[in-house]
Amino acid sequence: MEKIILDVDPGHDDAIAILLAAKNPNIELVAITVVSGNQTLEKTTKNALDICSAVGINNVPVAAGMSVPMIRKKQVVANNIHGESGLDGPHFGKQTVKLDSRHAVDLIIEILLNSNNDITLVPTGPLSNIAMAMKKEPLIVPKIKQIVLMGGSYQLGNVTPSAEFNIHSDAEAAQVVFSCGRPIVMMGLDLTRQALATIEVVNRIKTLNNTASNLFVDLMEYFRMTQKKVFGFDSPPVHDPTTVAYLIDPTIIQTKPMNVEIETSSELTYGKTVCDYYGNTGKEPNALVATKLDFDKFWNLVYDTLKLY
Amino acid sequence: MEKIILDVDPGHDDAIAILLAAKNPNIELVAITVVSGNQTLEKTTKNALDICSAVGINNVPVAAGMSVPMIRKKQVVANNIHGESGLDGPHFGKQTVKLDSRHAVDLIIEILLNSNNDITLVPTGPLSNIAMAMKKEPLIVPKIKQIVLMGGSYQLGNVTPSAEFNIHSDAEAAQVVFSCGRPIVMMGLDLTRQALATIEVVNRIKTLNNTASNLFVDLMEYFRMTQKKVFGFDSPPVHDPTTVAYLIDPTIIQTKPMNVEIETSSELTYGKTVCDYYGNTGKEPNALVATKLDFDKFWNLVYDTLKLY
Amino acid sequence: MEKIILDVDPGHDDAIAILLAAKNPNIELVAITVVSGNQTLEKTTKNALDICSAVGINNVPVAAGMSVPMIRKKQVVANNIHGESGLDGPHFGKQTVKLDSRHAVDLIIEILLNSNNDITLVPTGPLSNIAMAMKKEPLIVPKIKQIVLMGGSYQLGNVTPSAEFNIHSDAEAAQVVFSCGRPIVMMGLDLTRQALATIEVVNRIKTLNNTASNLFVDLMEYFRMTQKKVFGFDSPPVHDPTTVAYLIDPTIIQTKPMNVEIETSSELTYGKTVCDYYGNTGKEPNALVATKLDFDKFWNLVYDTLKLY
Amino acid sequence: MEKIILDVDPGHDDAIAILLAAKNPNIELVAITVVSGNQTLEKTTKNALDICSAVGINNVPVAAGMSVPMIRKKQVVANNIHGESGLDGPHFGKQTVKLDSRHAVDLIIEILLNSNNDITLVPTGPLSNIAMAMKKEPLIVPKIKQIVLMGGSYQLGNVTPSAEFNIHSDAEAAQVVFSCGRPIVMMGLDLTRQALATIEVVNRIKTLNNTASNLFVDLMEYFRMTQKKVFGFDSPPVHDPTTVAYLIDPTIIQTKPMNVEIETSSELTYGKTVCDYYGNTGKEPNALVATKLDFDKFWNLVYDTLKLY
Repeated sequence: MEKIILDVDPGHDDAIAILLAAKNPNIELVAITVVSGNQTLEKTTKNALDICSAVGINNVPVAAGMSVPMIRKKQVVANNIHGESGLDGPHFGKQTVKLDSRHAVDLIIEILLNSNNDITLVPTGPLSNIAMAMKKEPLIVPKIKQIVLMGGSYQLGNVTPSAEFNIHSDAEAAQVVFSCGRPIVMMGLDLTRQALATIEVVNRIKTLNNTASNLFVDLMEYFRMTQKKVFGFDSPPVHDPTTVAYLIDPTIIQTKPMNVEIETSSELTYGKTVCDYYGNTGKEPNALVATKLDFDKFWNLVYDTLKLY
Repeated sequence: MEKIILDVDPGHDDAIAILLAAKNPNIELVAITVVSGNQTLEKTTKNALDICSAVGINNVPVAAGMSVPMIRKKQVVANNIHGESGLDGPHFGKQTVKLDSRHAVDLIIEILLNSNNDITLVPTGPLSNIAMAMKKEPLIVPKIKQIVLMGGSYQLGNVTPSAEFNIHSDAEAAQVVFSCGRPIVMMGLDLTRQALATIEVVNRIKTLNNTASNLFVDLMEYFRMTQKKVFGFDSPPVHDPTTVAYLIDPTIIQTKPMNVEIETSSELTYGKTVCDYYGNTGKEPNALVATKLDFDKFWNLVYDTLKLY
Repeated sequence: MEKIILDVDPGHDDAIAILLAAKNPNIELVAITVVSGNQTLEKTTKNALDICSAVGINNVPVAAGMSVPMIRKKQVVANNIHGESGLDGPHFGKQTVKLDSRHAVDLIIEILLNSNNDITLVPTGPLSNIAMAMKKEPLIVPKIKQIVLMGGSYQLGNVTPSAEFNIHSDAEAAQVVFSCGRPIVMMGLDLTRQALATIEVVNRIKTLNNTASNLFVDLMEYFRMTQKKVFGFDSPPVHDPTTVAYLIDPTIIQTKPMNVEIETSSELTYGKTVCDYYGNTGKEPNALVATKLDFDKFWNLVYDTLKLY
Repeated sequence: MEKIILDVDPGHDDAIAILLAAKNPNIELVAITVVSGNQTLEKTTKNALDICSAVGINNVPVAAGMSVPMIRKKQVVANNIHGESGLDGPHFGKQTVKLDSRHAVDLIIEILLNSNNDITLVPTGPLSNIAMAMKKEPLIVPKIKQIVLMGGSYQLGNVTPSAEFNIHSDAEAAQVVFSCGRPIVMMGLDLTRQALATIEVVNRIKTLNNTASNLFVDLMEYFRMTQKKVFGFDSPPVHDPTTVAYLIDPTIIQTKPMNVEIETSSELTYGKTVCDYYGNTGKEPNALVATKLDFDKFWNLVYDTLKLY
């Protein structure tokens, strides 16, 4: 059983991560913290509450956090991928879940300080909330069990040739997180682009025909369209839920220890996760970087969890 | 009457800034917030409380803030200048002033959100507290009246050839502050190296023979020694109180509008305040940069204020 | 028939490029220019002359060029891959080919200025000679037909996580070349790591049993050992001859137009070829970047050319 | 007697440097090499030949060199200061001095290789020629006696807030030169802005009423106008001849040993000469940086030399 704080910027694939984390019996979802990223904080917060309301996640605090990157002036949203709402596609009903009044940064600090060193952080958006919490209260750092995040790439980026969206959105925050000294597992694009929601996958989940599976299907229909348009992919890669899946069953994902540093000093390669795949820097690995997904086991896990709704 | 939050890392010259701000009738000192810088947060906080206790500043909340820079891993203290305690020289008695329980970042946010847009921020240390507050709650930015800070230089640095200590200690925070869009007045080394506590100045203040003047004298004796040793200066430049002096009487200090940007991408010039003195970038000025001090008026103002203790 | 200047730093795989270029009927080898890289200039020059002497390349001027990178102080050789001589493995007899007295930079300038815009430059080492020639005499730039080079990578590097050896050795030179405005074809590691000299490949070429094939076999035996040791590869990738092979038969290699920029401002990612694989920068492509090798056709071409010796 | 190669981009103040170097009995002017800078190479070369023709410098080879910076794509000329011709103001007659056919880079190499280690390089423009020569033939470096250059600043720049024109024009070349290991004397803006051609200075030289003094007067009239317009200076600073003056009589100029590094990795501070004035880096000094000019002795020296024409 993994106790986690899920730090999200929903976002279509964040939504699936929430669905997994809230229902899978191997996960105890302690809090959902929201960050700007795929859309503005206002929209990602609304989306988080909409998702929780739609599938009845009532007992988990949902708190809004950073609306801007730590240092960079400009916030860039991914409306080309996630639409104007950040979660285009599904229609949501009335919000029944209410926003927690605490700032996400303070909620993260509070939970960690009161924890028995058993909380895993699961960020699937820009790392602004996590890094701000680490800097506002450095005492939380040794209390973090591990960080399993979606972000980065050791090969190609998506938002620039070198950088993946989450890391690029707040590379300074990523630098803080990757140098924090706690165990990190990185689900980069190299891995997540294997987690394709193929037609077969979607059709199978469609057969579940419950609230969660229907939400999944609606999300994937929109996501398929934009991923095709922007990247030319036939099936959309479902990045974020690989983090939760890894915590549920680590055998689903192969990883390789690497030293990972974040490029922040160059505009050209800003936000690149520089991953020492061949070990030629001689620097100590600070992350397990995901390399290979067991496609069938992953989607079975998603299917089995959504079935529980 | 200027309402100010004084954000300090005492520090010998910070101490003088506190003495001025707490007693001068033109200043309403709303809060003292403490940041790491000249020494660790633990020490600068102790020093702030010691100073307040010594001279009876009882009605002002003193809150501790950032113990580390926003992004950079390494904190560098100025123990070569301020000693192991951060305030070597004077002997302090029992602390009577207690620390406010709020985090300085939250106190700054709270005061600004509840203000009538009439609060001036006066940072005399690294800008970590101010920048963190701006990023944690961007709504405070338009509520800031102005920022009058000690830091930077348009000519030579002190901690590196290009950079001044406060800005160099957290250049990313400085970048946040200098690009925030609010009015900034910068007391850089070009100005503050004119604020020399000469023997004559110290001897004159010695004649006041009250708690504050005695503290001043003890501080300057130590400061004279280290500034001589490190920079070869015959008299110590008293950087920080120029900020408060400017607010009390702006005619004391000449300024020039310049565009100021912070270098954060190069290790060699990290923390340089790039000040467009000749206006050759064509960029809009975002700060009034201090150029010339009226030495006599400045020290008269210090003398007259310390006399009030 | 392609007229080429082959600019090399032999180097085991450079040697194969020379063997192809000198004998294949589709190539007219106008000059061999030598640069430091895999080893010092002294050694790479000796190696070029040794190779030419061994297989009787007598009618082509061989000129030595840059012994250092254009800007960077430190020259790094690849002795872990190519040994102390830069061409460890084979034993060479007496040198019969003499060094041309001209500096390679001047020879390149002279040939291009006197050309009918029909010369292709084929650099398989650091780009110091080419870039120096372009800068010393900018008039040569419009006279270059195209540049087909070995270097870079759009995914993983070899000498650092981000950078390939040739580009990393003189990234400033690479920046000059990639921004020169002439057509560029880039054989990066993504492609050249497909050009594996497997046991089968080597054994087949061994059957030719002539001077050139024997040299090939000796080189590959040493190269297999170091590539295994340094990168864990079972068979050595034969990077450089892919350039010449492409000129002989472009159908052997698939390419994709990309914008390529060279990272020179960051130490961490210095020398990365930032290749806009997905076209998300909106910048015009300036290079055809090789993506896929027809393994069989490539090795048939090598076999058929070596047979001509 | 100092043997020098004068490397210039005339330029009004370069012209005065030529006048001094050609006639002063303490200088043996071995060659004039020309570089692009204040204007394009075509124009600076024409200007050098015009100056030599006007005042009868017939026995010194004048060679044209680099028309572009070593790495940077964009060449920026100083037409706001030196006019469209690069030497606006005087009218020149027929050119009698002919251009040497050698490339300046090769001429510098040739002279140094054949020297007895007694040649001082005196660059008063961008350092492209010097650095290219050092890189094309590293053997010349130990043969250089010293380099006395005009460029840089330890306080304010002129072309950007941080950078002086010559260094900014080719900062990579400057990096090569400043790290070459040979003795360097740097006449930066801190010094050269003291070398003001006041009305009194110009009027005194006017009384000489010879070809050289008349040329001086014509140049200074134009220069006064543009320096006033661009920088607001009442009298124009005559930067370049301070180099030659220093070689004629070093007592004219006070210097201070400093470590000097060139900023090339940041766009914001590109081309800054980072001078360790206070010695706080702990790095060894690699240059004598000029700090103070003896105004009267300097102008007497100019007067006395121009009188010799």
